[in-house]
Amino acid sequence: MASFFITGASRGFGLALVKELLALPTSKVSKIIASSRSDSSALSEVVNSSSGRAEWVKLDVTDQESIKKAAAETEAKLGGKGLDVLINNAGICEYAFQGTKSMDNLSSSFLVNVQGVHWVTQAFFPLLEKGQLKKVANISTTLGSISLAEHFVQFPGPAYKITKAALNALTVQWALDHEKDGFTFIALCPGWMKTELGGGDMADLTAEQGAKASLDIIFNKSQKEVNGKLPKVFVEGWDKPAPGRANVYDGTNAPW
Amino acid sequence: MASFFITGASRGFGLALVKELLALPTSKVSKIIASSRSDSSALSEVVNSSSGRAEWVKLDVTDQESIKKAAAETEAKLGGKGLDVLINNAGICEYAFQGTKSMDNLSSSFLVNVQGVHWVTQAFFPLLEKGQLKKVANISTTLGSISLAEHFVQFPGPAYKITKAALNALTVQWALDHEKDGFTFIALCPGWMKTELGGGDMADLTAEQGAKASLDIIFNKSQKEVNGKLPKVFVEGWDKPAPGRANVYDGTNAPW
Ligand SMILES: NC(=O)c1ccc[n+]([C@@H]2O[C@H](COP(=O)([O-])OP(=O)(O)OC[C@H]3O[C@@H](n4cnc5c(N)ncnc54)[C@H](OP(=O)(O)O)[C@@H]3O)[C@@H](O)[C@H]2O)c1
Ligand SMILES: NC(=O)c1ccc[n+]([C@@H]2O[C@H](COP(=O)([O-])OP(=O)(O)OC[C@H]3O[C@@H](n4cnc5c(N)ncnc54)[C@H](OP(=O)(O)O)[C@@H]3O)[C@@H](O)[C@H]2O)c1
Repeated sequence: MASFFITGASRGFGLALVKELLALPTSKVSKIIASSRSDSSALSEVVNSSSGRAEWVKLDVTDQESIKKAAAETEAKLGGKGLDVLINNAGICEYAFQGTKSMDNLSSSFLVNVQGVHWVTQAFFPLLEKGQLKKVANISTTLGSISLAEHFVQFPGPAYKITKAALNALTVQWALDHEKDGFTFIALCPGWMKTELGGGDMADLTAEQGAKASLDIIFNKSQKEVNGKLPKVFVEGWDKPAPGRANVYDGTNAPW
Repeated sequence: MASFFITGASRGFGLALVKELLALPTSKVSKIIASSRSDSSALSEVVNSSSGRAEWVKLDVTDQESIKKAAAETEAKLGGKGLDVLINNAGICEYAFQGTKSMDNLSSSFLVNVQGVHWVTQAFFPLLEKGQLKKVANISTTLGSISLAEHFVQFPGPAYKITKAALNALTVQWALDHEKDGFTFIALCPGWMKTELGGGDMADLTAEQGAKASLDIIFNKSQKEVNGKLPKVFVEGWDKPAPGRANVYDGTNAPW
């Protein structure tokens, strides 16, 4: 009977999460509040055919007024109940093709990928305190692992890597502060997925595969296993190294 | 015969670095360009009694116009020669005494501690390319190590920790991009020092001890040992765990 709030649900992984949550029984997922910064026909279609189980709220994670309004609307929609799970999914990936020295999008990436996540978490925290599960999943990536930076040297997105590293650090600060209150904060790695951000068909997983495997982590991993950690998804068939594949999805926690 | 440029030299560790560099022979340190965002009588005293070996340049790391002007002035002062070592020292440490949920200084900390460092590095990069040593030291801290976060849970500066983690990630991106060009980029941990930021007398080391030990790393560690790493200073007498002491300064690289 868990309730979910998701940012950046207009398309890609966020939209796939909404669909996968709707595919689970009402006994497991009672209410899904899917937010986006602008209208999305793909999302409204899903919401409109959900018989009220999914609802839409407008939310731009870079706009504190918009966040405040969305939190108030969510509170009203939950009708006195708390929120169980917050998924901070909205994110941008901007490039610097001439290398780090040409990077001019560090602060704009930080605003969405880190500051936005922090503002949303602050605004929804009182609702999460009233919830049963008390889980926050910040959608991250192994590209934000500083230890793995050499492995990803070919990927021309320094601002993405740096801000996801900062998101990881932010997640750990929240996690350590609220472990004793029963919260679980994770920096979740959904795998390389065929979304716009993922670059389409070259990627490893469909958004649906990523969403299913991510919800596995959110539902089934314990606070002890993942609080303040960087868990990677487990995907059957992708859990061992294989020729021609750069990535493994084995459900372990990635290093910082 | 190395030349140095230092940001945030008005006081504290930055000022101590200027003094320690002046104490070294001219054969080792030819020119020190010490910058600060505003007038500092402590710094002007040091500069004025250096017989021209140290010079002052105005620089606010959050202001791109100021950075551009400082780089142009530095180029003129170097008289056709390149710059050998850039020390990105300017930094701020802001608190959130009610925990991460009360943190309202994340973006302002990011601007100084990360974006400022990136802008300065971009502006001085052409001068560094013309230099002999090609070294950039970004002054960081083990408080920015995500792996060590639990160890520092009592320190109420989440924005400082998160932005120093981002600074570490930034350092690694620059390091990997320019290793082949002979550059060394390090995220240097000078130790806990008795400066304003360090909280004064409670700290472990004097700014002078930190500066001496940091210059040891800058002069003596090889690209292979420290490029894209988080080296800690080595301080005689502090290199082994001791009762009543939380920190060890053993010259190893800290984990991310
Ligand atoms: N795809 C991958 O391979 C992959 C791998 C690891 C992690 N991730 C992470 O997964 C998350 C979703 O990525 P994706 O692949 O689904 O990317 P995507 O297809 O580009 O979708 C990004 C989503 O974020 C939203 N967004 C961007 N800025 C926003 C803002 N200011 N306020 C509210 N929403 C905003 C977008 O809304 P609009 O439609 O309005 O632009 C869109 O819904 C990101 O955090 C990403 O870093 C993706
Ligand atoms: N002290 C420690 O224990 C310790 C430990 C590890 C790392 N560090 C790092 O060492 C560096 C220096 O720290 P400190 O202990 O010497 O601190 P401090 O005494 O507070 O000095 C900070 C310096 O940064 C300058 N600064 C701040 N914002 C600036 C800006 N926008 N533009 C230019 N300069 C700016 C200050 O200039 P004004 O005088 O104009 O304010 C001052 O010169 C920081 O990066 C800090 O994170 C310190």
